[in-house]
Amino acid sequence: MGGLLGRVAHRLADLAGLIGGQVEGDPDREVESVRTLEAAGPRDLAFLNHPRYRAEAVASRAAALLVSRDLAAGLRDGEPPRDLLVVAKSADVPLALSRLLTLFHAVEAPEPGIHPTAAVAPGCAIDPAAWIGPYAVIGAGSTVGARAEIHAHVVVGAGCTVGEGTVLHPHAVLYAGTEIGPRCIIHSGAVLGADGFGYATSGGAHHKVPQVGRVVLESDVEVGAGSTIDRATLGETRIGAGTKIDNLVQVGHNVQTGRHCILCGQAGIAGSTRLGDWVVLAGQAGVSGHIHLGTGAQVAAKSAALTSVEPGVQVAGIPAVELKRWRRQTVLLSRLEEMSRRLRALERRLPASAGDTAGDTLPEEGGD
Amino acid sequence: MGGLLGRVAHRLADLAGLIGGQVEGDPDREVESVRTLEAAGPRDLAFLNHPRYRAEAVASRAAALLVSRDLAAGLRDGEPPRDLLVVAKSADVPLALSRLLTLFHAVEAPEPGIHPTAAVAPGCAIDPAAWIGPYAVIGAGSTVGARAEIHAHVVVGAGCTVGEGTVLHPHAVLYAGTEIGPRCIIHSGAVLGADGFGYATSGGAHHKVPQVGRVVLESDVEVGAGSTIDRATLGETRIGAGTKIDNLVQVGHNVQTGRHCILCGQAGIAGSTRLGDWVVLAGQAGVSGHIHLGTGAQVAAKSAALTSVEPGVQVAGIPAVELKRWRRQTVLLSRLEEMSRRLRALERRLPASAGDTAGDTLPEEGGD
Amino acid sequence: MGGLLGRVAHRLADLAGLIGGQVEGDPDREVESVRTLEAAGPRDLAFLNHPRYRAEAVASRAAALLVSRDLAAGLRDGEPPRDLLVVAKSADVPLALSRLLTLFHAVEAPEPGIHPTAAVAPGCAIDPAAWIGPYAVIGAGSTVGARAEIHAHVVVGAGCTVGEGTVLHPHAVLYAGTEIGPRCIIHSGAVLGADGFGYATSGGAHHKVPQVGRVVLESDVEVGAGSTIDRATLGETRIGAGTKIDNLVQVGHNVQTGRHCILCGQAGIAGSTRLGDWVVLAGQAGVSGHIHLGTGAQVAAKSAALTSVEPGVQVAGIPAVELKRWRRQTVLLSRLEEMSRRLRALERRLPASAGDTAGDTLPEEGGD
Repeated sequence: MGGLLGRVAHRLADLAGLIGGQVEGDPDREVESVRTLEAAGPRDLAFLNHPRYRAEAVASRAAALLVSRDLAAGLRDGEPPRDLLVVAKSADVPLALSRLLTLFHAVEAPEPGIHPTAAVAPGCAIDPAAWIGPYAVIGAGSTVGARAEIHAHVVVGAGCTVGEGTVLHPHAVLYAGTEIGPRCIIHSGAVLGADGFGYATSGGAHHKVPQVGRVVLESDVEVGAGSTIDRATLGETRIGAGTKIDNLVQVGHNVQTGRHCILCGQAGIAGSTRLGDWVVLAGQAGVSGHIHLGTGAQVAAKSAALTSVEPGVQVAGIPAVELKRWRRQTVLLSRLEEMSRRLRALERRLPASAGDTAGDTLPEEGGD
Repeated sequence: MGGLLGRVAHRLADLAGLIGGQVEGDPDREVESVRTLEAAGPRDLAFLNHPRYRAEAVASRAAALLVSRDLAAGLRDGEPPRDLLVVAKSADVPLALSRLLTLFHAVEAPEPGIHPTAAVAPGCAIDPAAWIGPYAVIGAGSTVGARAEIHAHVVVGAGCTVGEGTVLHPHAVLYAGTEIGPRCIIHSGAVLGADGFGYATSGGAHHKVPQVGRVVLESDVEVGAGSTIDRATLGETRIGAGTKIDNLVQVGHNVQTGRHCILCGQAGIAGSTRLGDWVVLAGQAGVSGHIHLGTGAQVAAKSAALTSVEPGVQVAGIPAVELKRWRRQTVLLSRLEEMSRRLRALERRLPASAGDTAGDTLPEEGGD
Repeated sequence: MGGLLGRVAHRLADLAGLIGGQVEGDPDREVESVRTLEAAGPRDLAFLNHPRYRAEAVASRAAALLVSRDLAAGLRDGEPPRDLLVVAKSADVPLALSRLLTLFHAVEAPEPGIHPTAAVAPGCAIDPAAWIGPYAVIGAGSTVGARAEIHAHVVVGAGCTVGEGTVLHPHAVLYAGTEIGPRCIIHSGAVLGADGFGYATSGGAHHKVPQVGRVVLESDVEVGAGSTIDRATLGETRIGAGTKIDNLVQVGHNVQTGRHCILCGQAGIAGSTRLGDWVVLAGQAGVSGHIHLGTGAQVAAKSAALTSVEPGVQVAGIPAVELKRWRRQTVLLSRLEEMSRRLRALERRLPASAGDTAGDTLPEEGGD
């Protein structure tokens, strides 16, 4: 998995340039690592991007803090005073952190080449700048691009394509015909291209519908550990460029996602559903088959979108409704007990008369 | 994973015979592949089984369409006219498709034999017509039947049985003692026979209860990628013949399923629960331990069956209730806001008198 | 995976001593196996710890039954009479069972040593009493303790620590830098140390925040098949001593669990959340990020804890509320239809007057 490169010190002024921020304090202060507020010491940078962690920030022994303007006040106090690396708003902190961590914690790429224990079938085109690790198995006719890393025990089926700079972590599996674009990251235990779940039921038995399509990942897709993306029955299951998929997510056959979607842990999408760009499925969300989530639609955690969602709409609940409405329902649900008491109180104040009683006992279900 | 056999053209008349359908148009028209409506061209067959996709069918360049009688009207129009392969009803399309895909996309089985890198322990009985792939590991005393395929990196523990024609895809794992019947398919990352989740808690610590039972799959079972079926504490966890399990499904220890059950993606069954035949768990459904789902019972997507379900009953919700009742509850939930307004309106029209007020403010919780 | 040792017969009197129980019947009766009520025969012990299975116990052919005092009455009847191994209460049965199964079904540890096909990188410290199985891959600078078992196809990244007596089942994966304490069990397909799900979104694209922390498991942790525990962004994701994790559980980056927690199948914890000791997540439960579940808190099956939970509190529902309250809500939900009818009956008895009507039709949403 490559080793960490040696640590190098960087001046705060240089870091500010890198992230488009400003130094409050000593621009020549040097740091050589980014660590948590608790673990950081006099050679480390830490960060604060939520008031929730302010006390830890104040108590931190970090040499310097990355922080947004609105949270910076008072953080320089202390002895010795802390230096600050300030960005405009808290939403800027993650990008700054991304750049700083990339700088400080660069991972050394493995030396290109094919490990002697790797089993590469005839007819493969392995770029000389790619790395194939121990016990990796590459099926016939597959293509692996430059700077791709295929780690230990990865199985790439026949006729697959692995793009430039794509990393397949140990134990990732690509079934035959899978195509992965450039700069993707596939984590351990992810399975791409297994058969979709399709059967024809006849005479009480389920007859397998052969799944002869494939899986295509466009560029810059990340797939988390243990996630599964099924091949299409016919055609393609396709994951759009820049889409990020967390762990243990299930993507059914024939699904198409747009670009830059976010599928959080344990979310699931049933077959043939289409997602626009920038769709977000929060953790453990579920999406029915054969529906459409418009661009920018969001499904809340633990919710189930059973019908299509318009672009830009946030939904929640089971079945999912618009988020605002779900919130009101949730509040009302918590008041049901009170409503029940009030209803009873009204009934006491208004005893049913002889004439009323009839109406009360008539079956009304159909009319409700 | 074997290669695709070369393509062979087939006459529509012959295909109609295979699927028990009728040709509308030219019985001698030849096709050599089944493709999606969008991708199909003048040598391809496509299919339509839902009015939702009618526009795509009309626009398709497919030479011929597989379609049900009720959807066939008007589909021959066009220039050149399309030929139709018509089955009686839309429910017949999947079975027809299953047969056509099996014909057109037959996968060549790997040559029988044991790959030189496979590690087969002493005392195994490997049928000469079986295939053991690269880096597969087979534990002592295991049996592998004829035409079984054990793909790359599969681990079969000691004392396992793999039935005739069963396929274990790359990275499937069978713990010791697992028994798989004939014609099963186990996808990558599936784990059969790991320890059930059983502990005895004493003095605040959880002491492992050794799980010494095993997992048995009867014939024609399919297990999806990343699914887990735990071994029994004692005795067997058993999956009935013809049961199909999707991806990332969890089956707890001592569970017994009947025949021809369908467990959709990310469903879970807690320990010691029994399912009759033809039970369906929709996606992300959960089932409590130590209960019984009768033959033909169905649990809706995202629902949680916390108590036993009678045969043939469909349930939904958390906790799951009969589907009809859940639907009414869902409608009523959406009307809660309106009910709340109506309740308030009534209260305004009927101001509490001095005498009523007492009743209204008395605690009534116990009596509700 | 080691073989079962030969069976040895044990006297009931000796077994009673082992488990702190009493014999009712013949203390010299010998048994040599623990089996299910259905499968047990004249040389076997079976157990009963729930009245639900009493009929099976009565019908069992077991030579002896492990049972709690309250369930023992009448169980000696039969011809020949059964002997009983009686513990004080049903909660004692699992611990007794744990000890008996450990005695009867001891698994032979594999012979220490490194399999010739294992790929152990330079600079590793492998204890001579450890076992490294076929095709296992150990990265540079890793440490493996005495009596550890690293089964076939396990990948241990660079700089990992595997504690004494810890077992990594086939296909478990540890990313670089992961630390596993002594006596842990990691099941097949579990992935420890994959990247946390962290991105900085800028200009519509999600930029990866490098995840440079690690995963630490303290002692006596068990991780089920296919479960995933992500490395921290910075610092550690930490699983407390004695915590037991079932299959297909997702633990996000930076999560910290206390000791002796129980995370049931398919549960998920989002990033940076902290769990106290003895926290229980039931099956398919979800927990939001950045919150705190106090010591002894419990989240019910299929529930979603979206906010912090006080110590010792049981919560249920989506969003989760106190269990008692959730139960009342559930009951009230089931009565909604009846409430709706009663509301309508009241409205009939109290027709809106001209003055009332206005109030009824005014928009009141804001005031509700």
